[in-house]
Amino acid sequence: MNADWLDAVKWDAQGLVPVIAQEAATGDVLMFAWMNREALQKTAELGRAVYFSRSRNKLWFKGEESGHVQTVHDIRLDCDNDVVLLKVTQLGHEPGIACHTGRHSCFFQSHQNGQWVPVDPVLKDPQSIYK
Amino acid sequence: MNADWLDAVKWDAQGLVPVIAQEAATGDVLMFAWMNREALQKTAELGRAVYFSRSRNKLWFKGEESGHVQTVHDIRLDCDNDVVLLKVTQLGHEPGIACHTGRHSCFFQSHQNGQWVPVDPVLKDPQSIYK
Repeated sequence: MNADWLDAVKWDAQGLVPVIAQEAATGDVLMFAWMNREALQKTAELGRAVYFSRSRNKLWFKGEESGHVQTVHDIRLDCDNDVVLLKVTQLGHEPGIACHTGRHSCFFQSHQNGQWVPVDPVLKDPQSIYK
Repeated sequence: MNADWLDAVKWDAQGLVPVIAQEAATGDVLMFAWMNREALQKTAELGRAVYFSRSRNKLWFKGEESGHVQTVHDIRLDCDNDVVLLKVTQLGHEPGIACHTGRHSCFFQSHQNGQWVPVDPVLKDPQSIYK
């Protein structure tokens, strides 16, 4: 496979690129993560989101533990070639759960009057997601 | 003003946090940028997006040159407290132009058959945006 498209990405000093995952059907921004070159290649190859876990320092096949796999419909690159946007379907629960807290989206804290207020419900007990 | 909410953010080694700007009305992801503490504070205070420009090493009042100001309706923080999501209205043109290339969104390149293909139209000549 031609690797020019991978070379076109401006990887940072750690060889990573920031990635935004957006639910294709709703437009909801689900989460933010990182990819290295291999993760992006695998994502395109498999049609499912593969990130790079900075804490575990290895590929993270989203859903490998939780079953909350993300099918990828579109991979977008920004104008500076240094940020990726995925359009995904969040599998494993209805509505989709992308967040490790058991919520739909990781962005559930809203700034209100100088405080971060959790405004979105927990859809599933995280303890039952990660055995 | 109580600064606890600013302290709650996990700023990176450079004192920055990644920020996603999403159009409130459409759900479109418009752009990705960075904020330092002052930028986030100003954003909340003014109700308009203020980023930190890493290339110019200073606050970037989005729209200061282009007129393409972003009104901020909601400031979200993710589950790890290290990524911000803004729900904005993109002013200055209809439809909104967030990208310096004159496009609606910065994420206009789509991965197709091993190539990045520009799939969204230029709405305004960048030369007429930045005099």
